[in-house]
Amino acid sequence: MIKVRVFRQGEELTTVPVADLSEVRKQPDLLIWVDVVDASAAELVQMGEEFDLHPLALASCARSGQRPRAEHYPGYVLYVGYTPEHASPDNPLRLHEVDLVAGDNYLLSFHGGTPIDSETVAARVRAHPELAAHGGGFLLYVALDELVDTYFPALDTIGERVEQLEEAVFAGSQVQADIFRLRKDLVAMRRMAGPMRDAMIMLLRRDLGLFSEEGRRYLQDIYDHLIRVVENVEDYQDLTAGALEANLTVLSNRLSDVAKNLGAYAAIFAVVTMVAGIYGMNFDHMPELHWRYGYAWSLGLMVAFAGGLWWYFKRKGWL
Amino acid sequence: MIKVRVFRQGEELTTVPVADLSEVRKQPDLLIWVDVVDASAAELVQMGEEFDLHPLALASCARSGQRPRAEHYPGYVLYVGYTPEHASPDNPLRLHEVDLVAGDNYLLSFHGGTPIDSETVAARVRAHPELAAHGGGFLLYVALDELVDTYFPALDTIGERVEQLEEAVFAGSQVQADIFRLRKDLVAMRRMAGPMRDAMIMLLRRDLGLFSEEGRRYLQDIYDHLIRVVENVEDYQDLTAGALEANLTVLSNRLSDVAKNLGAYAAIFAVVTMVAGIYGMNFDHMPELHWRYGYAWSLGLMVAFAGGLWWYFKRKGWL
Amino acid sequence: MIKVRVFRQGEELTTVPVADLSEVRKQPDLLIWVDVVDASAAELVQMGEEFDLHPLALASCARSGQRPRAEHYPGYVLYVGYTPEHASPDNPLRLHEVDLVAGDNYLLSFHGGTPIDSETVAARVRAHPELAAHGGGFLLYVALDELVDTYFPALDTIGERVEQLEEAVFAGSQVQADIFRLRKDLVAMRRMAGPMRDAMIMLLRRDLGLFSEEGRRYLQDIYDHLIRVVENVEDYQDLTAGALEANLTVLSNRLSDVAKNLGAYAAIFAVVTMVAGIYGMNFDHMPELHWRYGYAWSLGLMVAFAGGLWWYFKRKGWL
Amino acid sequence: MIKVRVFRQGEELTTVPVADLSEVRKQPDLLIWVDVVDASAAELVQMGEEFDLHPLALASCARSGQRPRAEHYPGYVLYVGYTPEHASPDNPLRLHEVDLVAGDNYLLSFHGGTPIDSETVAARVRAHPELAAHGGGFLLYVALDELVDTYFPALDTIGERVEQLEEAVFAGSQVQADIFRLRKDLVAMRRMAGPMRDAMIMLLRRDLGLFSEEGRRYLQDIYDHLIRVVENVEDYQDLTAGALEANLTVLSNRLSDVAKNLGAYAAIFAVVTMVAGIYGMNFDHMPELHWRYGYAWSLGLMVAFAGGLWWYFKRKGWL
Amino acid sequence: MIKVRVFRQGEELTTVPVADLSEVRKQPDLLIWVDVVDASAAELVQMGEEFDLHPLALASCARSGQRPRAEHYPGYVLYVGYTPEHASPDNPLRLHEVDLVAGDNYLLSFHGGTPIDSETVAARVRAHPELAAHGGGFLLYVALDELVDTYFPALDTIGERVEQLEEAVFAGSQVQADIFRLRKDLVAMRRMAGPMRDAMIMLLRRDLGLFSEEGRRYLQDIYDHLIRVVENVEDYQDLTAGALEANLTVLSNRLSDVAKNLGAYAAIFAVVTMVAGIYGMNFDHMPELHWRYGYAWSLGLMVAFAGGLWWYFKRKGWL
Repeated sequence: MIKVRVFRQGEELTTVPVADLSEVRKQPDLLIWVDVVDASAAELVQMGEEFDLHPLALASCARSGQRPRAEHYPGYVLYVGYTPEHASPDNPLRLHEVDLVAGDNYLLSFHGGTPIDSETVAARVRAHPELAAHGGGFLLYVALDELVDTYFPALDTIGERVEQLEEAVFAGSQVQADIFRLRKDLVAMRRMAGPMRDAMIMLLRRDLGLFSEEGRRYLQDIYDHLIRVVENVEDYQDLTAGALEANLTVLSNRLSDVAKNLGAYAAIFAVVTMVAGIYGMNFDHMPELHWRYGYAWSLGLMVAFAGGLWWYFKRKGWL
Repeated sequence: MIKVRVFRQGEELTTVPVADLSEVRKQPDLLIWVDVVDASAAELVQMGEEFDLHPLALASCARSGQRPRAEHYPGYVLYVGYTPEHASPDNPLRLHEVDLVAGDNYLLSFHGGTPIDSETVAARVRAHPELAAHGGGFLLYVALDELVDTYFPALDTIGERVEQLEEAVFAGSQVQADIFRLRKDLVAMRRMAGPMRDAMIMLLRRDLGLFSEEGRRYLQDIYDHLIRVVENVEDYQDLTAGALEANLTVLSNRLSDVAKNLGAYAAIFAVVTMVAGIYGMNFDHMPELHWRYGYAWSLGLMVAFAGGLWWYFKRKGWL
Repeated sequence: MIKVRVFRQGEELTTVPVADLSEVRKQPDLLIWVDVVDASAAELVQMGEEFDLHPLALASCARSGQRPRAEHYPGYVLYVGYTPEHASPDNPLRLHEVDLVAGDNYLLSFHGGTPIDSETVAARVRAHPELAAHGGGFLLYVALDELVDTYFPALDTIGERVEQLEEAVFAGSQVQADIFRLRKDLVAMRRMAGPMRDAMIMLLRRDLGLFSEEGRRYLQDIYDHLIRVVENVEDYQDLTAGALEANLTVLSNRLSDVAKNLGAYAAIFAVVTMVAGIYGMNFDHMPELHWRYGYAWSLGLMVAFAGGLWWYFKRKGWL
Repeated sequence: MIKVRVFRQGEELTTVPVADLSEVRKQPDLLIWVDVVDASAAELVQMGEEFDLHPLALASCARSGQRPRAEHYPGYVLYVGYTPEHASPDNPLRLHEVDLVAGDNYLLSFHGGTPIDSETVAARVRAHPELAAHGGGFLLYVALDELVDTYFPALDTIGERVEQLEEAVFAGSQVQADIFRLRKDLVAMRRMAGPMRDAMIMLLRRDLGLFSEEGRRYLQDIYDHLIRVVENVEDYQDLTAGALEANLTVLSNRLSDVAKNLGAYAAIFAVVTMVAGIYGMNFDHMPELHWRYGYAWSLGLMVAFAGGLWWYFKRKGWL
Repeated sequence: MIKVRVFRQGEELTTVPVADLSEVRKQPDLLIWVDVVDASAAELVQMGEEFDLHPLALASCARSGQRPRAEHYPGYVLYVGYTPEHASPDNPLRLHEVDLVAGDNYLLSFHGGTPIDSETVAARVRAHPELAAHGGGFLLYVALDELVDTYFPALDTIGERVEQLEEAVFAGSQVQADIFRLRKDLVAMRRMAGPMRDAMIMLLRRDLGLFSEEGRRYLQDIYDHLIRVVENVEDYQDLTAGALEANLTVLSNRLSDVAKNLGAYAAIFAVVTMVAGIYGMNFDHMPELHWRYGYAWSLGLMVAFAGGLWWYFKRKGWL
C-alpha cells in the first residue's frame, strides 16, 4: 500500500494519488513523503522506476532481515533501520525493519505496519515550515527522530523486566529462563541499535554534502540518542550478567541453608532414636527400666536432648 | 581435474579443452573461468605457468589450511576463502578451502569437491551480460557471492543446534559435550568468516584499481553479508555462553532439589524409626505396650507423623 | 531561580538583578556568571533569548537525563556534566545533571539544587584576577574543576563500601544484594565520568580557538582528574568482581565445612545407635547382657566410640 | 662458539675461520652468515666490534629474556625472536631466544643451542641463488622462516594436549592441574608469538628501504604464518577455557549423581531398618510376632520394600 | 631535604649548598641534579622559583597520588612515576611516587625516602662522560632507567606469591583471601606501570626536540622495559584468574570427595544397624536367636557386611 503525502512550505496538500507522483515530483517547493506499507512486488518495481533506484538499493528495501546501515547512492541515501515493539514485559520484543530512501525533495519509506506514526511526522513537518528548505534531508531527520524515539519506551519495558528479575533473584526464584530470554532480547537490540548508530556517522560525513551545518546539528542529536540507546542496552546487559551471578550465589547460599536445615533435623531425630536405642537394650541390670516413671524419664530425656539441640541450632541460625 | 568455461557477452561457448587455454586467453571479449578440482601437482604447475602466477600465490593454492586473505599481485588478485558444509545438526561442520585468482578476463578457482555450484555461477554470468564488461572482477564477484551465500544455510543449522541446546538446558539434560562441540564449531567458523570479511576490505581499496565504482558497490554488498555472518556467529557464541551459564544454574537448582527431596524422605523414615525405637524400649512400665490396640496405635502414630511430614514438605515444595 | 554574579578584574560587584543582564553584558572587562537553579520554563526562554542559544542547546539545558557531552555552537560551548552525591555508604548514590554554557565573557549554569558551591567558585575567581583575562573560558574551567572535585569524596564513600564488602565476604556473610547494588552504582558512575572525560577532549581541541595554550593546560589538569575518576571506578569494578568470585569460593568452602560437620556428627550418633542396636538384639546367648555392669559397659563403649570419633574428626578438622 | 658460513651466488665456500671475517666482509658478491652459539663475553665484544653494533643492540644479544621485537639501526636491523621446543605432551614447553642481526650482506645470529637447523638454512640459500641478490635481507628471511616453522610442531603437541584434556574432562577426571599448566604454556607462547608478529610489521615498513617489493612479499608470508600461530594459540586458549567450564559442569553433575546415589541407598537401608524397628517394638499384642513364619514375613517385607525402592530409583536413574 | 649534585664531564664536583644553586646553574658544561626528599612547603616554593616552574607542575610535585604521566612545559618536562617496594611475599606491596623535572642541564627529583639509589645514578653519570653532552635529558634517562629497574625485583616477589598460590590451590588450601590481595596488588601495579609506559611515548615524540635520535634509542629501551613490566603483570593477572578458577574446581572436587566419603561411612554404619535391628525383632520364631553362637554369628554378619562395603567403596575410590 502506497500513500503519498505532499507538503508545501509546511502545509500539507490534499492526498495525491500514486499515479500523479511523477507529475508532482517535477513541481518546485514541494516535499514529498511516499510511505510504502507491506510493499508488493509490483509496488517495489514501480517505486524503483519512479525514483530510479539502484538494483542493490531496491533489493535492500525488498528483502527483510537486512543489517542496519546507511548507503550513499548518486542523488539519494538509503538508511536501513529497525524499530522495536515491546509494549509490556509480557509481550515479546519484536524488531521491525524500516527502510528509508531520501533524495533532494522526497523521502521514501518501506515498512510492514505502522512502526512510525505518520501523523506525528506530518505534524512535525507542518510545525517547522522554516526547516522545509532542507528538503528530503529534513524529512529523513524527522523520520529518523521518530524511529529512534520508539526505542525509549521499549527500553523502559526492558528496565521493568530487569527490575522484576532482580527482585526474583533475591527472592531466590528460578529465573534462569527469564534471564536467558532477556539476554537474547538485549543481544538482538544491541545488534540493531549499534549499527544504526554507526550508520549515522556515515550520514554526518561532511564530504557527502547531504546536510547543511545546521542539518548536521540535528542529526548529531539523533546520533546522541542512539549512543544513549546503545549505552542503556549495555548497562542492562551488565545488570543482567550481575543478576545471573547473584542468582548463582543466592542458589549456593540456599543449598547451604538447606544442608544446614536438613542436618539439624537429622541430628534431632538421631538423638531421640539414640536414647530409644539405649533403653531398648536387653541388659539384665538396667536400673532405669524398673523405675516407676522410667518411661516418662526416657521421654523427658528425648525431649530435653531434642529441645537442647533445637535451641542450639536455632541460635546458630541453622533452623 | 580442470574444467574451462568460456563466456562471450553472456553466452557460454562450448566446452574448451584445457590444452586450448592459451589460445582462448588471447581472444578479446571473452570471460574465462578455469575451475580446478582436487588439483594434482602437474595441474598446479600447468596453471602456474599458463597464468604466470607468483610462486607464493601458487603455493597458497597448492597448500590447504591457509588463512583467509586477499593478496594483490601485479595483474591479478588472490582470494583465499572457506565454505562451510553443515547440512543438519547431526552432520559435523566442515570447512572447505576455496582459492580464487582473478585477472583481467579470467577467474581461476581451486577447491576440493563442489563447494560452489558451478551451474549457478554460470547461470548468473549468462543472466547479466551487461556486467561482463567488468571482466575477471565480475567473475570474482559472482564466485564470492555464491561462496558467502553458502554460510547462511550453515548458520541456520547452527541456529537449530542452539535451539535444541536451549531446550535441553532448561529440561536439565546433560549438555556440556554438546555445548563444547558447538563452541568449537563457532570458533572455527568465526576464524574463517572474520578474516574473509577483512580480506574484502583489501579488495575494496580504491587505489588498487581492481573494481569500478559500480563494481565496488556489489563487493560492498558481499562485505555486508560477511559482516552479518560474523555477527550471527558472535550472537550464537553469546547465546551458547548464556546457555552454559544457565546450565550451571539449572544444575545447581537441581542439586538443591535433590538435596531437599532426599532430606524430606530421610526425615519421614527417621520419624517412623524413632517411634518404633521408642516402643522398642524395655521399661517395665510403658502403658501403651499393654493396650489392646497399642500396636495399631503405634502404627497409626507412625502414619500420622509420616503423613504430617509428607504434607508439610509437599507444601514447602520439597517433595 | 536565577542569580547573576558579576566580577571585574577579580572583584565581585554587588548583585545584579536579572533584568539588567542585557545592560551588563555590553560592558567591557566584566565576567558574568548566571546561575540558574531549578529553571522554570519562563526562565529558560528568557535565558535562551538573552544569550541567543540554539534550540537544541536550550533543549539540552531544559531536559534532564542527557548524556554528558560537549558541543560547540557559534560563539559558545555547551558542556553537559553530572555531579555525584554520596555522603556515606548508607546514603544511596545520586547523580545530578549540571549544564554549563560558556561564551566569551559569561558562564551560564543550569542545575537543580547546589551541586557546585557557588561561594567557592566566586572565591577562586576573586583569587586569580590575572586569569580573568581568559573570559568565560576561565569561569568554565573553575566550574568544571569544582564539578570534577565532587567525584573524589563520592569515590571515597564507594571505597568504604568496597572495604566493608571485602570484610563481609571473608566473614562469609551474605553480600550478593550489596555487591549487586554496588555494581549498579559503579556502572552508573562509569557511565557519567567516561563521557565527561571524552567531552573534555572536544574542549581541548586546538582548532576551536576556545582556550589559549595556557588555558588548555588547566583544562588538561581537569581531564587528568577525570581519567583518574574513571580509572578508580574501573578499579572498584575489578575489586567488586573479585569480591563476588571470592564470595562464591567462600560459600563453596562453607558448604564443604557444613557437610563435613554434619557428616562427623552423623557418624558419632550412628556409632552410638549401632552399639545400642547390638545390645538390643534378642539372642539367647549374649554374655554381656548378663554381666553385673553390662549396662555401664555398653554406655562406656558408646562414650569410647563417640569420643574416639570426635577426637578423630577434630584432628581432621571436620569439627 | 662462532661458525662462519660464506655463500657466493648459491655456492657455499669452505669454512672460513672467524679471524678472517674482516677480510671476507670486504669481498663483493658474498653472503655471510655468522652463527654464534652460547656466546661468551669475549665473542660478544668481538662481534660487536667487527660489525660495529650499537651498545644497546649488543646488550640485547647478550642478555636473555628480551621481549620479541625488531629494531632499526643505521646499516642493520635487530630481530629478537623465540623458538618453542615441545616434542611431546610429556615434555614441558620451552622457549629459546634467538637474536638476529641482518646487514647489507651478512646475518649474525645469537642463540643457545640449535633452535634453527643451520644445514636446512644453508640448503635453502644454495637452492635459490637468484634470491641471493637480496643480500642480508634474504638470509634474514630464510632464518625467520625456519624460526616461525618451528612453531607448528609445537602447536601440534599443544593440540594433542587439548584433545587429551577434552577426553579427560568428559570422562570426569580431575584435570585442573593439567588445564592450569596448559593455560600457562599458552600464555607464554602467546606472549612470544604476538610481539614477534608485531615486529614483522616494523620490518615490512616501506620507508626503511630494507627489503625490495619482492622481498616484502616473502616477509608478508612469514607475517601471515605468525598471524596463524597467534590465532591457533588463541583458539586453544578458547578451547581450554571451554574445557574448564565444561569440567566445572561435569563435576557439578557428578556431585548431583553422587548425592542421588547416596540418597537412594540411604533410603533402602532406612526402610529395612524401619521394618526391623517396628517388629522390635514390645507391644503385648502384635499378631505378626506370633505367626509361624512371622520372621520370614518380616524379612520378606524388608526385601520387598528394599527391592521396590531399588527398582524405583533405578527407573528414576538415581542408581 | 635538598641535595645538589653537580657533574662536569663525568666528574662529580664537591657538594654544592642549595644557596649557590642559582650561581651554579649559570656556569656552562655542568650537569646538575637536585634531589628533593620529603619536600617541605618552603623547599617547594624555593625550587619553583629557582627553576621557574609552572604552578600546575609545582602542584603535581607537591601533591601525592598523582596519575603517572609526562607533561611538556616550555623549557622542561615533568614526569610523574612510581616505584614499587615489595621485598618479600610477607611484606605488603607499596608504591612510592617519584616526580622528575628535566631541563636543559638539570634534573629535579621529588620523592619521599630513597626509591632511587642516588649513588648508583651518580656512578652511571660518572661512567659515561661522553653522554653528558645530552644534558638534563641524559640525567632523566638514567633516573628513569633506575626507576623502571626497581619493578623487576618486585615482579619476582609477585612471581613467588603466584607460585605459592598455585601450590596452595592444588593442595586444596583456602586461598581466596590471598588471591584477592594478590589481585588487588596486581591491579595497583598495572595502574601505575601502564600510564608510565604511555607517558614514555610522549617523551619519545619527535617534534618536542627533547632528545636526540641517539637519546631516543635509550628511552626506547626503557619503554621496552615498561612494556615487559606491564606484560608480566598481565600474565600474573591471567595466572591468578586461572588459579581462582582452578581453586573453585578443586573445591568442587573436594566437596564431591567429602560427600562420597561420608556416604560410604554412612552406608557401613547403616548396614550394621540394620543387622542389629533385624535381630532385635521380637518374633516368637527366629531360629538364629536360639543358636549357641547366634550372637557371634550376628557380629560376624555385621563385620562381613561392613567389611564388604568397605572393600567395595575402597575399590570405587570413595574411601
